[in-house]
Amino acid sequence: MCPTADTVPTDPAQMVAVDTSGRVGRAPTAVNGVQGQNGVHANGKPHAKHNPYAPRASDFLNNVSNFSIIESTLREGEQFANAFFDTKTKIAIAKALDAFGVEYIELTSPAASEQSRLDCEAICKLGLRTKILTHIRCHMDDARIAVETGVNGVDVVIGTSSFLREFSHGKDMTYITKTAIEVIEFVKSKGIEVRFSTEDSFRSDLVDLLSIYQTVDKIGVNRVGIADTVGCANPRQVYDLVRTLRGVVHCDIEIHLHNDTGMAIANAYTALEAGATHIDTSVLGIGERVGITPLGGLVACLYAANPEYVKAKYNLPMLREIENLVAEAVEVNVPFMNPITGYCAFTHKAGIHAKAILNNPSTYEILKPEDFGLTRYVAIGHRLTGWNAVKSRVEQLSLTLTDDQIKDVTAKIKELADVRTQSLDDVDTVLRVYHSGIQSGKLAVGQKEALDRLLREHRENSMSRERSEENLNAPAPASAPVVPAPA
Amino acid sequence: MCPTADTVPTDPAQMVAVDTSGRVGRAPTAVNGVQGQNGVHANGKPHAKHNPYAPRASDFLNNVSNFSIIESTLREGEQFANAFFDTKTKIAIAKALDAFGVEYIELTSPAASEQSRLDCEAICKLGLRTKILTHIRCHMDDARIAVETGVNGVDVVIGTSSFLREFSHGKDMTYITKTAIEVIEFVKSKGIEVRFSTEDSFRSDLVDLLSIYQTVDKIGVNRVGIADTVGCANPRQVYDLVRTLRGVVHCDIEIHLHNDTGMAIANAYTALEAGATHIDTSVLGIGERVGITPLGGLVACLYAANPEYVKAKYNLPMLREIENLVAEAVEVNVPFMNPITGYCAFTHKAGIHAKAILNNPSTYEILKPEDFGLTRYVAIGHRLTGWNAVKSRVEQLSLTLTDDQIKDVTAKIKELADVRTQSLDDVDTVLRVYHSGIQSGKLAVGQKEALDRLLREHRENSMSRERSEENLNAPAPASAPVVPAPA
Repeated sequence: MCPTADTVPTDPAQMVAVDTSGRVGRAPTAVNGVQGQNGVHANGKPHAKHNPYAPRASDFLNNVSNFSIIESTLREGEQFANAFFDTKTKIAIAKALDAFGVEYIELTSPAASEQSRLDCEAICKLGLRTKILTHIRCHMDDARIAVETGVNGVDVVIGTSSFLREFSHGKDMTYITKTAIEVIEFVKSKGIEVRFSTEDSFRSDLVDLLSIYQTVDKIGVNRVGIADTVGCANPRQVYDLVRTLRGVVHCDIEIHLHNDTGMAIANAYTALEAGATHIDTSVLGIGERVGITPLGGLVACLYAANPEYVKAKYNLPMLREIENLVAEAVEVNVPFMNPITGYCAFTHKAGIHAKAILNNPSTYEILKPEDFGLTRYVAIGHRLTGWNAVKSRVEQLSLTLTDDQIKDVTAKIKELADVRTQSLDDVDTVLRVYHSGIQSGKLAVGQKEALDRLLREHRENSMSRERSEENLNAPAPASAPVVPAPA
Repeated sequence: MCPTADTVPTDPAQMVAVDTSGRVGRAPTAVNGVQGQNGVHANGKPHAKHNPYAPRASDFLNNVSNFSIIESTLREGEQFANAFFDTKTKIAIAKALDAFGVEYIELTSPAASEQSRLDCEAICKLGLRTKILTHIRCHMDDARIAVETGVNGVDVVIGTSSFLREFSHGKDMTYITKTAIEVIEFVKSKGIEVRFSTEDSFRSDLVDLLSIYQTVDKIGVNRVGIADTVGCANPRQVYDLVRTLRGVVHCDIEIHLHNDTGMAIANAYTALEAGATHIDTSVLGIGERVGITPLGGLVACLYAANPEYVKAKYNLPMLREIENLVAEAVEVNVPFMNPITGYCAFTHKAGIHAKAILNNPSTYEILKPEDFGLTRYVAIGHRLTGWNAVKSRVEQLSLTLTDDQIKDVTAKIKELADVRTQSLDDVDTVLRVYHSGIQSGKLAVGQKEALDRLLREHRENSMSRERSEENLNAPAPASAPVVPAPA
């Protein structure tokens, strides 16, 4: 009933694992005469030369190939209703994210509870390569606790929308600005990074926003943050706000996007196009309500734009392991439609898809499963199957059939699959019976009745064979004499 | 381990169902002096007057409040690896989608198999309000079968990218155009709707695309379709292509978006902003690989932009039922982070979120759960809780405590939750013991040891009470005499 992340799509017997690695090179090398954008990006790594999925036109603001991830599973993720991370789990997640290669890990405020403070200190002492941040309210009490934990930086946040100003903290912009300056200068004085973020930015007054961002930029904040706290933003709004802000501040721009309407991945991608530099994620997107931009989804869309850059930055085959670790910790399943690691993310079913994938996986795939340590499947035992998919199986079985014969036997498979999905065993049986019928001269193309008769005979023979085997293998009834099986 | 669609978030005992319906009217009625866009849309329905989440600037191309859904669970969804819909299931899904109010239902090609053809005819005969479409390859053989089934329209598709032209059908643009004209004119001659779509449009040559769309528009096709068959498009690419096409053809524009990088919902939204008129969806997004734009996610983002329009078009409380129906048919769980119906979509946890939600749900919600027949929860028994959330529970229990007392008992709850998440029962016990301590004069604010002693006494009393009850209720051991319990 409930496929887990480790399950192979449906019954593995219904699938054909297809190794088409040797064929990848056959992909056309030019699409519309343009080879992506971002020919050179900030860290000077060469751009993938032949990626037909990359954006077509270059754009000087674009950071799709020049960004950092702030991984917030241990802060935003702890706000997921199911989450309760003990110290051991937090350390396991932090180590896994470090090994994956995220640039930052964000932790729950040490002011939230005593254990939160102790865990923050413990993670800072692990000596990870990734930078450790903690996330606090814009308040000196919280800041004083945060800077003593050993973190590399502090993420400060305060609500600026009229909603939050009225119904949450009740403070005006003058008070917010004054407090922000005090907190930022205090954290800076400790020699660590500081970010200032508004909350609910997309429902804040634009002039208020730009004014406070400009102020904190002038006093030397490392990053300003935009937050779609309620998940109301759409991609073009995100693009407009980030691009406007890019013209106002000199510091880095971080964005935190909730997923209430399912747009958090696309909003993150679009923010990078508009000049954002840092994206907040959590593993599987866990967080308040339906959470935020998921790490895996973000990696998927950035990989599609520039696979070489993303492969060089992150240990992609670890993604599945990290998702399983977090899924287990918060007692959920990896969603069946998760990008990359979803149940059937690399399973191809319809006949025309299967046929084209067998010719060249690039026809219907923008992510190479092998780059994520995963495998592609082509399902063939169903009513939407096609003769090219069946042909590939015929070749795998080393049977010799002409195209006309394959089309003929495919019609039979479709007919059977109209009643129930056929396992790969079922399909193989039909193919073998068909092949031996052709070889023995008992069958020719179009002889439906002859094929039905051969299949019926095969079934009867198998059943009688099974019955004899049952007799051989069945334990003798306790109260009856042991009778030797017929030879 | 595995929360199903019907499960209340975590242990229901940890949650407080909050009825704030009476408070919704308190939401501020003006945000930045602008009240959304689309003051009037094509069908003349009035726009929601006070929606602070609506896009801010008007845009004459925008169809976010003027669109139709083409629901493809029974076509694209049948290409999901787990899907095998028998006739009864297909009819149940079609009826549910009709009752929900989608404008179109798209069915698998009747040329795919004999049963597919029979099912298509059966659904056409149901007399549903929604229009029935079927989806065929751009081929006269398929078209001849399709027009005989009783459908209201035929969706024609052919691959136009260099990938599909090389590795799938092997046809050139001249052949494609010629066949398209023949098929379209044939379907039109039968007096039913016809759509012409390219496949893999975002990897097709732009000039080829515009040329064939212009040609089929001139001969009177009802809709042209764009398909992101591999899920490689991003929102700004979608916007650009749809807007360009909007200037080339007069007919409607449909878009079909795969979700491989998690951007299918946002891409659909952006397509409507650029002038698309029809969006393809499937329930839970099921389809090839990780599927397409999910019905629920699309509804979520369009509702956020214009709740009144979406509520008037669709029977929103049915969404959960339809998702459960399809989830059961294809043996998957509704993903925990699904927009609207996800496990915790309306659960608020962090203290500042809980506090603000209790003041006004609009602070952290863009979707009203009651519009979807769902309930909002505030979790309070965890280390991220806050005293305002606890205060709401104190009031629900009709206990009388001052703010200082509530802050004091909240510190105790956080301390306990640092060890393990507290159920609502646990929280209630702490609150009641604290309250009776205050009432009896045995406790005052800040007396941590006194509170610990009272809690310990309460626990010991409960345990001895439980032991007596066990003695009273326990069945007498078979071989021992029955001893009366102590009075």
